[in-house]
Amino acid sequence: MKAAVFRNPHQPLTIEQVDISNPKSREVLIRTAAVGICHSDLHYIDGYYATPVPTVLGHEAAGIVEKVGSEVDYVQPGDHVITCLSVFCGYCEFCITGRPFSCVNPKTARPDNEPPRLSQNGEIIHQFYDLSSFAEQMLIHEHALVKVRKDMPLDRAALIGCAVTTGVGAVVNTADIEIGATVAVIGCGGVGLSAINGAAIAGAGRIIAIDIVDSKLETARQFGATDTINSTVLDPVETVRELTSGGVEYSFEALGTKRTSEQAFEMLRQSGVATIVGMVPEGQMIEIEAAELTNDKRLQGSNMGSNRFRVDMPRYVDFYLRGQLKLDDMISKRIALENINEAFKDMKQGELVRSVIVFDPE
Amino acid sequence: MKAAVFRNPHQPLTIEQVDISNPKSREVLIRTAAVGICHSDLHYIDGYYATPVPTVLGHEAAGIVEKVGSEVDYVQPGDHVITCLSVFCGYCEFCITGRPFSCVNPKTARPDNEPPRLSQNGEIIHQFYDLSSFAEQMLIHEHALVKVRKDMPLDRAALIGCAVTTGVGAVVNTADIEIGATVAVIGCGGVGLSAINGAAIAGAGRIIAIDIVDSKLETARQFGATDTINSTVLDPVETVRELTSGGVEYSFEALGTKRTSEQAFEMLRQSGVATIVGMVPEGQMIEIEAAELTNDKRLQGSNMGSNRFRVDMPRYVDFYLRGQLKLDDMISKRIALENINEAFKDMKQGELVRSVIVFDPE
Repeated sequence: MKAAVFRNPHQPLTIEQVDISNPKSREVLIRTAAVGICHSDLHYIDGYYATPVPTVLGHEAAGIVEKVGSEVDYVQPGDHVITCLSVFCGYCEFCITGRPFSCVNPKTARPDNEPPRLSQNGEIIHQFYDLSSFAEQMLIHEHALVKVRKDMPLDRAALIGCAVTTGVGAVVNTADIEIGATVAVIGCGGVGLSAINGAAIAGAGRIIAIDIVDSKLETARQFGATDTINSTVLDPVETVRELTSGGVEYSFEALGTKRTSEQAFEMLRQSGVATIVGMVPEGQMIEIEAAELTNDKRLQGSNMGSNRFRVDMPRYVDFYLRGQLKLDDMISKRIALENINEAFKDMKQGELVRSVIVFDPE
Repeated sequence: MKAAVFRNPHQPLTIEQVDISNPKSREVLIRTAAVGICHSDLHYIDGYYATPVPTVLGHEAAGIVEKVGSEVDYVQPGDHVITCLSVFCGYCEFCITGRPFSCVNPKTARPDNEPPRLSQNGEIIHQFYDLSSFAEQMLIHEHALVKVRKDMPLDRAALIGCAVTTGVGAVVNTADIEIGATVAVIGCGGVGLSAINGAAIAGAGRIIAIDIVDSKLETARQFGATDTINSTVLDPVETVRELTSGGVEYSFEALGTKRTSEQAFEMLRQSGVATIVGMVPEGQMIEIEAAELTNDKRLQGSNMGSNRFRVDMPRYVDFYLRGQLKLDDMISKRIALENINEAFKDMKQGELVRSVIVFDPE
């Protein structure tokens, strides 16, 4: 099958033929229908994060089950599924206390790894986040997927696989905002827009969107933002404080930079909660004023929207199908796998919300 | 009446005659029985925090009601009370949502301030935290006190007025630990020991006490610590990780320094929660690694144990009277008001847990 292979940071991905194994025991072979291009993938290409190479990146996908291993009874060929990198064992202390997103025994690769799930001329191609979705097929553990309604379009379903679950989940699971709460979201890419959308669905009061691109702020309004701040024009911390008489109750950082993470904390009012959703590169420190914590403030991270994806994702599908989750407006471009490097260039420009690779444009 | 007056940072307090007004409307005049000497008082003397001068410091007190204002029906002369700086209005958004410790309308001084509650030759003596307890009498709002059982010794009750409520409350209110949780407490003064004691009462599993003084670590064991670390001998972060296979679920910083606040975060395992209980001087920044937050970690402050003191303090009294709260061992020295400056010197030495000024050593 065809896949976009990542061999070294700072180099374009190459479209190559890759061998995929047959599903064993609890594995499922999936025909990829669509896969979103996410900032996290770019972080690996840019060398901010490391992963064994060669590998196939991509982790925000939906597809159709082709074949299942002997012990799989959750899905069967023909089922529509969304994949998720939060693979869970179902029996560790985190899984059995409602936090499968923190699972300490993720089912990475097959136990014996013989043959590896992905290979080329007998040499291993490492699987990325147990998924490797920039490929025509995926071979994954059944605990890395969830079955969804067949009336859900798979290109939009793919977005639920990462951006939507991360953004909406940060608001409704991690921060668990109350009805009427004041919210600020820094960064209006796929994750940020999902956070805004999640805040709107959860009944937030004022929702302030912050970005440096006016067109994204316009989109943010469609997703539920009541106010917008272009942070190249106005200081986001001061402006949020003015708009809300002192600061917001909940802030969400959806970019992954040091300064915006600090701003998320600084724009809180007393008893406010800042949730860092973006992936700040490893080793980067953020600085906050300790005495501010004593005003009952909190700084927390969100591990992929604190998802229990088997429960959350079908709900998000329902929200889309009844018009509450704005996935149509989140896809800026549908592209072929061959154009993947251009899509990463577009992402760096920062103008587009999200490109989605579509394999079977029916 | 006699009081210890604070006129300028870095100068000893002076014992002077101070005039105290008569209780108006919702005010209560209290004969001070005992008042603990707290690190927060020292922070003002050392100039780390600012407050209008001249003033009378002191905020960890218990006493007996002498006289009440015309609208007071909660207490009457002869009632035993503990005072608290978390004065609450009872009608702001924080008060009516269960967070009176964050009240935005604290009843500071009397509305008209005429005459001021405290004065000297007609000149105002500012009230400190609406209490000013280093004095034979206190004139305070009825929402700054709670009535307690008369079989509770007032010198030990005084400790509940700040250290105990701050330490125990950080564990059971702010962090709300689960039974069996692993806990680390940095700093074994009055607040830290109370956090350890609170963790023990709440059924924590492993409780690791950290300090630089061996005698305090010994005391910590009496309060419920299962393990101790002298951080001048062993690195506290590494040692906590070794003792707990990776870090604790809950850490508490009870000193108020930059480095120990950072350590509290660094010693967390995945999904851990660090609570900063100590008062870090204003303007001091703490640095944490942002990517660690994504492992579902949290950093939060505790505003005086997130207390609802009218409910919490009588419970703590009950815990003492049935032998679960170790207040007897927390008082290192009982002294007279005249010896207050020596008590601050002792505190700086760091060997004693807590000195308590006793006005009526019956």
